Amino acid sequence: MAPESWLDIAPDSRFSLANIPFGIATFPSSDKEAIAVAIGEHALNLAVFASNDGFSKMPLIQKHIHVFQQPTLNAFAALGRPLSGAVRRYLQDILKAETPYPQLLKEDKDLQNQCLVPLSQIQMHLPFDIGGFSDFYGGINHAYNAGALFRGQNGALLPNYLHLPMAYHGRSSSIFVSGTPVRRPWGQIVEDLTATEKRPIFVPCRTMDFELELGCFVCGGNAPFEIISIENAENNIFGFVLLNDWSARDVQRWEYVPLGPFNGKNFATTISAWVVLADALEPFRKAGVKHPGPLLPYLQEQREDFTYDLNLEVELVSGSSKSTTRICSTNACDGLVWSFPQMLAHHTITGCLIKPGDLLGSGTISGETTSSLGCLLEQTLNGKQPIHLEGGEKRFWLEDGDEVILKAWAGNEQDGLVGFGDAAGVLLPAHIQIGLDTL
Amino acid sequence: MAPESWLDIAPDSRFSLANIPFGIATFPSSDKEAIAVAIGEHALNLAVFASNDGFSKMPLIQKHIHVFQQPTLNAFAALGRPLSGAVRRYLQDILKAETPYPQLLKEDKDLQNQCLVPLSQIQMHLPFDIGGFSDFYGGINHAYNAGALFRGQNGALLPNYLHLPMAYHGRSSSIFVSGTPVRRPWGQIVEDLTATEKRPIFVPCRTMDFELELGCFVCGGNAPFEIISIENAENNIFGFVLLNDWSARDVQRWEYVPLGPFNGKNFATTISAWVVLADALEPFRKAGVKHPGPLLPYLQEQREDFTYDLNLEVELVSGSSKSTTRICSTNACDGLVWSFPQMLAHHTITGCLIKPGDLLGSGTISGETTSSLGCLLEQTLNGKQPIHLEGGEKRFWLEDGDEVILKAWAGNEQDGLVGFGDAAGVLLPAHIQIGLDTL
Repeated sequence: MAPESWLDIAPDSRFSLANIPFGIATFPSSDKEAIAVAIGEHALNLAVFASNDGFSKMPLIQKHIHVFQQPTLNAFAALGRPLSGAVRRYLQDILKAETPYPQLLKEDKDLQNQCLVPLSQIQMHLPFDIGGFSDFYGGINHAYNAGALFRGQNGALLPNYLHLPMAYHGRSSSIFVSGTPVRRPWGQIVEDLTATEKRPIFVPCRTMDFELELGCFVCGGNAPFEIISIENAENNIFGFVLLNDWSARDVQRWEYVPLGPFNGKNFATTISAWVVLADALEPFRKAGVKHPGPLLPYLQEQREDFTYDLNLEVELVSGSSKSTTRICSTNACDGLVWSFPQMLAHHTITGCLIKPGDLLGSGTISGETTSSLGCLLEQTLNGKQPIHLEGGEKRFWLEDGDEVILKAWAGNEQDGLVGFGDAAGVLLPAHIQIGLDTL
Repeated sequence: MAPESWLDIAPDSRFSLANIPFGIATFPSSDKEAIAVAIGEHALNLAVFASNDGFSKMPLIQKHIHVFQQPTLNAFAALGRPLSGAVRRYLQDILKAETPYPQLLKEDKDLQNQCLVPLSQIQMHLPFDIGGFSDFYGGINHAYNAGALFRGQNGALLPNYLHLPMAYHGRSSSIFVSGTPVRRPWGQIVEDLTATEKRPIFVPCRTMDFELELGCFVCGGNAPFEIISIENAENNIFGFVLLNDWSARDVQRWEYVPLGPFNGKNFATTISAWVVLADALEPFRKAGVKHPGPLLPYLQEQREDFTYDLNLEVELVSGSSKSTTRICSTNACDGLVWSFPQMLAHHTITGCLIKPGDLLGSGTISGETTSSLGCLLEQTLNGKQPIHLEGGEKRFWLEDGDEVILKAWAGNEQDGLVGFGDAAGVLLPAHIQIGLDTL
């Protein structure tokens, strides 16, 4: 049984006292972006809290107190996982019913009025200035299903898949916070890729897809040409968000050999706004898909419970009927065969420089059942059979106006849920005409 | 005949009055990074020059004068190409013998002492805070030669190659300024890729290569989900650097299907320090490789002279003998079949967000002759025949201690050379042991 808060927190709140996720928000009182944590239905403005000596009982943070006045989490995360974890625990102490420091917030109504604001009154922003974004391919069911659709079941998993956590460098400029609408892109596609002469046409993407992923924000980093060993990788993980790697499948299929996905992926990636610290997910550790081995030593995981018992859902809100359908229900331990520490070790094994605020995507997380597939490519067998929505509509691919909402939570109501903010985005129609002088 | 400067500039200086490249340097007088231009054997510190009313005769720049106090060129480039071009022309006026404003610098010895410093006394830094780096594949001879080595001459150019300027998202965190040593990476390789069972081993890269490329810095950018049309692309180009896309060929070959190059490329990219403005290269426009067509309208170039008559050279300084060998001599108009405006239009055709300071790589530039090939993969036919160095040494691939130096210049001594700074880097040996607790 987790401690109660002196704040009124509904049992089904995903931002229980056991969570304390961090984010960047603008509050009604100022245009300035501020660091905040979510607690129940409120956000606690840490910029204001810090300015009012809210951290006065935490000596360790005093010489770093400026990090709470930054417009991103980069400097805070750069303090390192032990210190950011200690800040989370301190805030849990501040917010619990039997707080040792009641004078700092619980009994200070004036300060509460200044820094505790309903979530409905704040505007969330990207949590980090994201320098590098690398998107992995760690969901083995997704890799197998996608491979089987394109190469048949025998060649479904490529020879390198189980030897290294594969990834492509993504485009950090096109990462948007939940709630930002995404516009259907135009692109080059070839309608018949089996034809001897390929005739690309230039049209709005016809096969728009989402991908259900976890995103992992890095807090530490390495020096140039040094590595982050798998033993040290966990210490370099700040926390997690949900990540929708929007994909223009038709564009991707024509462009991706030999340099990988480019325009098929680079127009938009949506992430949830609140970053759930790795520490908050620690109680929910669980084994992922067991790697069949062998693995080179630099990739040998230290633990079997390398992922989390984290419920994942995708909802599709139809643009035409506004009906909501849960189109995917899975768990983070169902699909992942590579851990984030393995990804981080592999990413830096060449010495590639990683910095606080860099983002790693897990790759699409799909379970083994039809209802647990993490993208439409898999759900519709590459557009061959539709999925059925509430109210009778069908979908092969996303339609204009559709909203995709990713959700995630761990734990139970008794101990307090540890949930993510949604990663939501509405698909806007493509521009009517493009590529002319007027645009 | 170009105007003379009141400064003593050697005729063979690549930083003639016709050039005026921009960069970021620390000067002996301060630890602070400052914006500078190169002129002859000197750097002009624009932070100091601006603080001393050096721009007082340029009304247009007055409200933006803070850009000269920044530690990167991002804010300066964001002013847009017309204004940054006007600053270059103003500085040419300041520095020419018959300057209309002699009181501003020519006759002010005190100010000269403060802001004109020999290049040998300054330390160069990365010119931009580089948000996004995308590396294209625009050199058709390189694409053909590399394709022929891996797939035979019939399948050398992939079906999509001539339809779209192909690219991969690179890793901006691993871009280093000229002079930074690069460490040979470790990585996963498979010695026999034709074997049925692939057995990766973990070793230092055995086939280290360079790639001769042009880098293009963007000054403008687009709004999210808007495009930069080919008509507007030229206005979004700030200037150029040399770019060495260091490549671990063995790592790349094992990892790159299906998501493209990752560890094979992400450990280091070296760029020259001084950014030559697009305006400075305008007099040297020249036709590139003629695209055989057809092209979709959004990629139709507005001009045939889409590249530059720019001499390109690669020198290899042997780590063991210290002898210098020119191992490549080519020209920017010999290999490129895609222009930077085409690359920019294609990059943003999905709405992908581009910002000032983003970097595009041209892809390896190779001519058609043996002496004009822009990487060792091509020069040695994938390690099958060595190249010969001065003093009798041979190379199949780069050896520890070798230095690779890219050079570029346009024009002639009479009108003033427009040259690039070198893009140089020494290859350090791999770490002795990696992947253990101690690292």
